[in-house]
Formats: sequence, C-alpha cells, structure tokens
Amino acid sequence: MRIGMVGLGKMGYNLVQNLLRHGHEAVVFDKDPAPGKRLAGLGAVPAENLEELVANLPAPRTVWMMVPAGKIVDSVIDSLLPLLDAGDVLIDGGNSHYKESVARSEKLAAHGIHYMDVGTSGGTEGAERGGCFMIGGDKDAFEKIEPIFRDMAVDKGYFYGGKSGSGHFLKMVHNGIEYGMMQAIAEGFEVLDKSGFDFDYEKVAEVWSNGSVIRGWLMELAGQAFSKDPKLEGIRGVMQSSGEGKWTVETALDLGANAPVIAMSLFMRYRSLETDTFHGKVVAALRNEFGGHAVVRSAD
Amino acid sequence: MRIGMVGLGKMGYNLVQNLLRHGHEAVVFDKDPAPGKRLAGLGAVPAENLEELVANLPAPRTVWMMVPAGKIVDSVIDSLLPLLDAGDVLIDGGNSHYKESVARSEKLAAHGIHYMDVGTSGGTEGAERGGCFMIGGDKDAFEKIEPIFRDMAVDKGYFYGGKSGSGHFLKMVHNGIEYGMMQAIAEGFEVLDKSGFDFDYEKVAEVWSNGSVIRGWLMELAGQAFSKDPKLEGIRGVMQSSGEGKWTVETALDLGANAPVIAMSLFMRYRSLETDTFHGKVVAALRNEFGGHAVVRSAD
Amino acid sequence: MRIGMVGLGKMGYNLVQNLLRHGHEAVVFDKDPAPGKRLAGLGAVPAENLEELVANLPAPRTVWMMVPAGKIVDSVIDSLLPLLDAGDVLIDGGNSHYKESVARSEKLAAHGIHYMDVGTSGGTEGAERGGCFMIGGDKDAFEKIEPIFRDMAVDKGYFYGGKSGSGHFLKMVHNGIEYGMMQAIAEGFEVLDKSGFDFDYEKVAEVWSNGSVIRGWLMELAGQAFSKDPKLEGIRGVMQSSGEGKWTVETALDLGANAPVIAMSLFMRYRSLETDTFHGKVVAALRNEFGGHAVVRSAD
Amino acid sequence: MRIGMVGLGKMGYNLVQNLLRHGHEAVVFDKDPAPGKRLAGLGAVPAENLEELVANLPAPRTVWMMVPAGKIVDSVIDSLLPLLDAGDVLIDGGNSHYKESVARSEKLAAHGIHYMDVGTSGGTEGAERGGCFMIGGDKDAFEKIEPIFRDMAVDKGYFYGGKSGSGHFLKMVHNGIEYGMMQAIAEGFEVLDKSGFDFDYEKVAEVWSNGSVIRGWLMELAGQAFSKDPKLEGIRGVMQSSGEGKWTVETALDLGANAPVIAMSLFMRYRSLETDTFHGKVVAALRNEFGGHAVVRSAD
Repeated sequence: MRIGMVGLGKMGYNLVQNLLRHGHEAVVFDKDPAPGKRLAGLGAVPAENLEELVANLPAPRTVWMMVPAGKIVDSVIDSLLPLLDAGDVLIDGGNSHYKESVARSEKLAAHGIHYMDVGTSGGTEGAERGGCFMIGGDKDAFEKIEPIFRDMAVDKGYFYGGKSGSGHFLKMVHNGIEYGMMQAIAEGFEVLDKSGFDFDYEKVAEVWSNGSVIRGWLMELAGQAFSKDPKLEGIRGVMQSSGEGKWTVETALDLGANAPVIAMSLFMRYRSLETDTFHGKVVAALRNEFGGHAVVRSAD
Repeated sequence: MRIGMVGLGKMGYNLVQNLLRHGHEAVVFDKDPAPGKRLAGLGAVPAENLEELVANLPAPRTVWMMVPAGKIVDSVIDSLLPLLDAGDVLIDGGNSHYKESVARSEKLAAHGIHYMDVGTSGGTEGAERGGCFMIGGDKDAFEKIEPIFRDMAVDKGYFYGGKSGSGHFLKMVHNGIEYGMMQAIAEGFEVLDKSGFDFDYEKVAEVWSNGSVIRGWLMELAGQAFSKDPKLEGIRGVMQSSGEGKWTVETALDLGANAPVIAMSLFMRYRSLETDTFHGKVVAALRNEFGGHAVVRSAD
Repeated sequence: MRIGMVGLGKMGYNLVQNLLRHGHEAVVFDKDPAPGKRLAGLGAVPAENLEELVANLPAPRTVWMMVPAGKIVDSVIDSLLPLLDAGDVLIDGGNSHYKESVARSEKLAAHGIHYMDVGTSGGTEGAERGGCFMIGGDKDAFEKIEPIFRDMAVDKGYFYGGKSGSGHFLKMVHNGIEYGMMQAIAEGFEVLDKSGFDFDYEKVAEVWSNGSVIRGWLMELAGQAFSKDPKLEGIRGVMQSSGEGKWTVETALDLGANAPVIAMSLFMRYRSLETDTFHGKVVAALRNEFGGHAVVRSAD
Repeated sequence: MRIGMVGLGKMGYNLVQNLLRHGHEAVVFDKDPAPGKRLAGLGAVPAENLEELVANLPAPRTVWMMVPAGKIVDSVIDSLLPLLDAGDVLIDGGNSHYKESVARSEKLAAHGIHYMDVGTSGGTEGAERGGCFMIGGDKDAFEKIEPIFRDMAVDKGYFYGGKSGSGHFLKMVHNGIEYGMMQAIAEGFEVLDKSGFDFDYEKVAEVWSNGSVIRGWLMELAGQAFSKDPKLEGIRGVMQSSGEGKWTVETALDLGANAPVIAMSLFMRYRSLETDTFHGKVVAALRNEFGGHAVVRSAD
C-alpha cells in the first residue's frame, strides 16, 4: 500500500522505515524537513506540506498521523479535512485520549472519512522492527488497512478492538499496566539495593529474564540499563509521566474499577518530581506540635 | 499514692508534674540529675539511683518506667528486678512493642511482680495536663493503681484493655491511626497548596476545627503550626517515624487485616527521608530504554 | 435577615431550623410540600413555588439552594434566573464541583447576580445546631450575608475563602481528608478486631476521644456507633461515596499533588461495593496457570 | 551428577524429570511412595527412607530438599544431619525465609556441611522444562553443583547471588515483584471489563504478548487462562498468598525501602479473602452517624 505519514519524530520515522522495509510506499511530512529528507534516501516520498502529501496518495487515501496527543492532532485534522474525501481513512497513531478519538471520529464521519484510533506499543524499537497495534474504528476501514498492520506488527501483534475509541482505550490501559509493572520491578530492585547483599543487578535482571515467572521485555530492558550503568549512578530517579497512566486512574475512578496499584505507581511518579513536599511539612509540623519531635529546618 | 518514676525526659517529667499537681508523691530518677532537681523544687523526691528510688517507696511498690522502647527497658528491668518484691507493680509507660511487653510480663510474673503495659497518648501536653492511658496487665494490679490514672487522665481518658500486652497493642494501633489521619490532613493541605487559590491555612485549619466533620486535636495543632509559620517555609517535609506505625502494618500483615492507608502513610514517611530513590532510577532508566524518554542526569 | 431556602431535605430543613432559632426569617420551598408545612409550624413562610418564594423576599434578595449537586442545581438556577434581579445573592450550599460553581458564577455575574459557593460541614446535626461553612464568591456579597453565617456556624466555624469556587474547593478537600481519616480509624478497629484481644470498642473509642492525639468528632461518632451495636454485626461494610472524595483525587491528579491515602480510601470504598472482582479472578487464574495453585470455583 | 531429591511434590517431581532428561542420576524420596515409583519408571532410584537415600549417594553428597517452607525443612534437616558428612552439600530449593536459611546455614556449617539456599522460579512447567534458579551459599560448594543448574535452567537461567541467604532473598523479592506485576495486569483487565467496550480478553492478552512493552510470561499466561474461560466466570477472585509477598513488604519496612505497589498488591489479596470487612462496617457506621447516610443491613 501507499500511505501518508504526518509527523516524523522518533515513532513516525521508525514506522516509515518499517513500512518501507515491507515493500509499502510512504509519502511523508513533518514541519521539520530533515527527517523527510533522510527517509527519502530510503525510498519515501517527502512532501513539503499536507497538500502535497495528500496529492501524492491514491484515492481512497490512507493518512497516518503520528503527532503528539492534544491540540496538535486537532490542528492537523483541521488542515487535512478540506483535502480529504469521503472514503479516505485517517489514522491517529498517537496516545490520544480515547474520548477525544470518539469525538473526532464522529466529526469526521460526518464527512464520510473513516477515523481510526490506533494505539502503538513496543517503543521506538518496536515501531521500526515490529510493534504492537491496538486498533479501533469502522470494521470495513480496518479491513482495508489491515495489510499494513500485518506487515508492521510482530506476529499476532495487532488487534482490532472494535468501535471507535477501543484502540486508544486499550493503549491507555496497556500503559496503566506498564506503570504498575515498572513500579513493581523498581521496588524490587530498591529492596535489593538496601539489603546487605551486594548483587550485580545486571546479572539479577538477566536471571529474572530467563525462565522466571516475571520474565518479559521490561526485565530485559532493566538488564540492558544496568549493563550501561551498573548502579544507575548517572541518573536521577525523576519519573516523568505522559498522561495515559493518569487517564487509566481517572477512567478507573469513573468506572468504579479497582486500580490501587496503578494509582500508587502514578503518585510515586508525581512524588519523584519534588525535592520537598507540602504534605511532608504538615506531618513534620504536627509531630512537632504534639510530641515536640524535632523538625528539619529549611536552612539545614 | 506514692510512686517511683524512672526516666525524666519530656514525657516522664510532665507525668510527674501531673502527679504532684493531683496530690500524689513521686520518687524520681534519671541518669541525668538535672530534671530530678527541678522536680524536687515542685515537691518530688529525687533519687540518686534505682536502689534509693526503690528504698523510698512503700511496699507494695509502684514503679513507672518512662524510658525509650527497646533494650533500655530490659536494662532498667534487670536493674530493678533484684530490688523489687512479690506484689510490686512495674509499669512500662513507653511505646514498647506489645509482644515484648507480654514476654516481660511473663518473666516478671515468675517473681510475683505485676508488669503493666501502659500506652500513653496526648503528647507532652497531655502528659502534664491530662492525657490518655491504655492499660494492660493483671486486673487486680490495675485496680490498685487506678487512682493515679483517674487523676492523671482527662475525664474518661484511661482504659483497662485486659490482659498483658493489650495496653501497648491499643497504643500501637492508636499511633497507626494517627499516621493515617496525619497523612490525610497533610494531603488535603497539599492539594490546597497546589491549587490556584491563595488560602490562609491557619484560617482553613481553624474553620475545619470548628463544627466540621474532621474537627479534632490534630486539626487544631495544624492551625497552631500555621499560626507560627503560615506556609511552613521554615521546615522541610522530612517525616520521621518511631516504630508504632511500622508495627501496626506488620501486625496487620500477620493478622490478615486491611491497612492500606496506614501502610501508605508509612511509605510516604520513608520516602520523605530520601532525596532520590533507587526505584525512581529504575523506572526512569526503563522509560529511557523503551521510549527514548529523556532522563535527568545526576550532574544536572 | 430574611432569606429564601430552596430544598428542604435533611440538610436544608435543619439549616432553616438553625436560622429561625437565631431570629432570622425564612421563606422556604421544596417540591415536596410536607417539610415546608412542618417548618411553617416553627415560623417559616412556606412558598408553593419559586415565584412565590422570590416574591416574598426583600430586594436585594438572598436565596440559598440546598439541593443535590449536578443537573438539579442548573435546573433550579434556570428557574430562578428570570425571577432574580441584579444585586441579588444566590447561594449554592450543596456539594457541587468547584469548577461548576465557577462556571455558574460567571454565568450569573453576567446578570449582576452574586453567586456564592458554600461548602457545609458538620453533618445534619451541624446544620441544625451549628455547622461549619466554607464560602467562595464576591467579597462584597459575602459581607452582606455574613450575619447569617455568624449565627448559623459554631464559633469560628465559617470562613471566606476568596474568589468563586474556593468554598466548594475547600469542602471538596475537607471531604477528601474525611475519607482518609475515616479509613485510618476503620483500619485501626479492624486490626483490633482481628487481634486475640477482646476489646470493648465503645470503650476504646471513648478513651481515644479523651486526651489522645487522635481525638475528634469522628472518634466520638465511632463510640456512638459502637454504643448502639457493639460489634457492628447489624450492618454490612458497604461504603458508598458521593463524589467529593473522587473529585479530590482527580484534582490531585490534575495538580500533581500527592494523595495516596485519600486515593486508597476511595478504592477501598469501591472495592466494598463488590462481592467479587475481576482483578481477583485474573490473579487467581494466573496463579493457577504458573503454579497450579488451586482456584475457588464459582459454584463453591 | 548423582543427587538426592527429598520431596516429590509438583516441583520436586518435575525437577527430577528435568535432571534425568539431562543425563543426571537421582535418588528420590517422599513420604508418599507413589511419585517415587513413577520416577523409577523414568530411571530414578527410589529410596524408602532418608537413610537409604543418603546411602545411595557418592561422597561428597548432594541432597536437594524440595519441601514446603517452615518447620518441615527443619525436621528434614534434623533427620539428615546424622546421616551426612563434612563436605556434603544440602540444598533447600523451597521458598524458605532467607533469614532462616542463613541460620540453618550457620548451624550446618558447624558440621562442615554446605547449605545452599536456592530460589526456584518458572512454575511447575519451568521445573520440568527449564527453570530459573537463584543460588546463595558457599562459592566453592556452588561451583561443585553448578553443572546441575547449567542443565536444569533455561539458558542464563541460574545465578549465584553470593553469601548464604542471597538465593532466597532474590526469590523473595522476585515474588514480591510478581505480586505487583500480577495486580497491575489484573487491574488493567478490570478496567477493560467495566468499560463499555466488549473486548475479547484472550485476544487482548495475545496482542499485549506480541511486541508490546508489557509482553512477558505473565501476559501469555493470562491469554492461556482466558482461552479456557473467556470471562473467568468459572472462578472466584479469591487471591491466596503463600508468604514471599508478605516477607518482601516486611523486609522493605525493615530496610526503609519504598514498596507501596507490592504492599497494595498484598492488601488486595487479603481483602479478597473476606466477603465483608470490619473496616467497611466502621466507615459505613460513621457515615450514618454524621450524615444519616443509609447503611446496608446485615439481613439485606
């Protein structure tokens, strides 16, 4: 197939490489022309703008957006809308909130355009070598674009989840699980780190990656990280988050679902962004008030 | 009554003041002679050592230990044991683990000595002006010493909980609850502090102390703390803990009891003692491995 | 002052009694005429509809809505809007989301009407005998209605928090704290309940209400509950929630604030509404898959 | 090598199969003679008692205990001790607490016997086809028995962790991580289950097992479980636990390590064993006391 790719960051760039390797054609655009030029060297058709990108696609067109979630998606949609025709397929491969995807799908359906929400997992490596795709939207439209997922995914690594929003919903929950799994692994290593034993963490991650119940890609990545920096002395434990974990907790709250572990994983990330906390000050002040327990002064 | 007080720290000192104010007599000892001298000025009988303290008490004697939990209690008991007689009452008013109190009680029972485990709450202020006492041990022995609790406690502020260990068990759980309540209050103020509103926390604590569902001494103490330092800028949010919260969680784990809130309160205290965490490093490293997400370098 | 009260449920009814007792006048309305009739017996002026209620108030009017949060508030506002004039004050005394209060305030400000968001705490008892009020909105409008708060609140039990939304924000956080405090207390009693000791919980709650660090109204209420049903055998541990706890957690998530204890309190409430859980089934199934651990069959 | 295996339950039996398949010889004993007879059919030498087992091993001997943790280990050790000689190696392959392993190691070291603590992961399947082994104890002794681990483990699936206790410590932490990972996965599926989408969970687990960040054996096992019972309707969400998760939390508490996610995973397991909770009753009773909120009666 020949498809258009809008957004050539780490993920979009790698997806195009993946497509080309599988014999697909890609018309590519990014506001920064550099990655498009590099991809041209691999056989992609770089477009100078969205008009040119759309003009270079056969009808019915397939356009894949791989841009940051939020207003940028709406802005790209607004720019594409006048250029697309009924029957075209527009894919949002980013981490949009599933409710926004449902709303966008309805808006585009009024123009006869099939909006597909596609959650993409497997990291930058997966995007290039074979990732995991969770797909929501019209079933007919899915079947038309299925060949690209068959090729870009690892074996059995794509799934049509059903109606609009289901792809991004699955990706959101996937990331929520990821938060919990990462925190669980990290807590384990912290316990090792505070024990009297002097473990080689790379070796521990390696043995846990081979034959254990907790083996999996995250454990392999832990081994990879420890192989570069055995005690992670070069980095600080600042844990950013990009939204899907928070959305999972919010969704759990809305649905009355139990998600204590995912929620705690998120709070520990928030906590890591602060060097001091107001709640800590309050507790310290209270202990001082009732028991005369010493406080640590700010100047100390 | 005339009783002996061993240990004249913040709590022991104030308890003696409380006793004297109610017309009791106190023979007092601390390895530091200073507080004993000050209490002599209020009518207490200072002893130079435990022998002198015991010698100044009428049989059957009542001795109250108010020393830090742990080995010091055992050491004081070992020193007192040869000095005491069957029928004497020995009180541990500190925060000992209830299982240790049960063991000590059994050991002393073999000598005919009544060992009473007494949890003391109300802070240093309560110790002096009227506190809260949770008492475990022989019922007969309790009845003999009840008059001092009747006087030293606020109205209805003492309770005989039953067999040996019950007093310290109640105190342990009391402190576990305290951890949870303090963390809940502190989280609320943190949410206020991060909101766009510019609240006067002293006033907020005041209104919440008057007529609200969450009114209570801790909220009053919060108001008191904010009255001295409106945004707690002078202190750091370092939350020490002294053991009872941990014991409550451990006991809950042993009993199969649900204590997620008390456990989380404790973990947030632990977290506050660290400026960086190993679990944070692991999560940050994992995010970098799979998604190329930036890490914060230690040098940054 | 003479004010209008719309909504005569448990809270509204008691607030009117409170007003009347302090010499204020109240014009009252509820779609159910019964409580209005009863209040007429205490001196209130019952109105048959909102028109009549408004017509019986001197300009500039003060109308207090005490209706369930959500669409009902909007519906009452829509009905009142044509009846009110610039300079009138409209109070929402319910548990509305503070963001909705801000939006409503802006909408009414366009008509010159002062919209005040008032969080009310202290339960039904407080509403009648003296409660706690957290007030947001125009400062001028607040000063006009301050006399009723001065009378209806316990001493120091009202607080002007500032701009629109601040009253309901404070109430929301108050309830979040309440969730955490209640869960902490409840966990403590569960630990007692699973211990080998045979405590009299009413007495425990009583001693903890007198002189202890954790004394407060909630502990007194625990004692009251145990006095009626010593082991709470007559009720089930189903913990409903009405929204503010969830909003507090959501707000914490939005603000990047640490609220693990409030969040866990909420999740334990959710958990209590279920007799079985899907997450439990998944964990049980996984244990069976890897370790052959027995599962409990649904039919068992 | 020729080794002795004591305990032929699911794990021990499969380990012997694994050994035999790799050309090792096994002298086997279990108080139930049945599994030993079956293993005899595969080439093992069944012993009628420990004396016979030891008598059939060449010196220096290697005996592997695969019996339930706790007193049974001590009882087997006591029986073996008079039969073994200095230089023999005794392996505890079960889930013993690492502190007990350290103590046993010291006890046996006094007799010149090398006690090795070996944590075994990979489930019953791993035991047979290739598992994961974490090994603590004397380095020299480890090197002598390394050949059996090289054969029984999957590639890179064994690790010498260092001094006595390190093997069981690693296994304990491994299981703590496992608790957190399982709960995270389970919470994700619960969110799916409460969403409006109608997902095929087997397919979801499959796509998440292929190319995603959260791929791993646990996710594959989830798919396997859903393949047998698509909505897990046949089982109840009762989550037993066998000790290592609890030990991990206790160890974290002792070390001052952050383990909120592992702790919450454990508490959710405890919660799942109860159909009603005392903490729930207390919260429900409190809500009733202050707000008149309805409670669910036990008879309802």
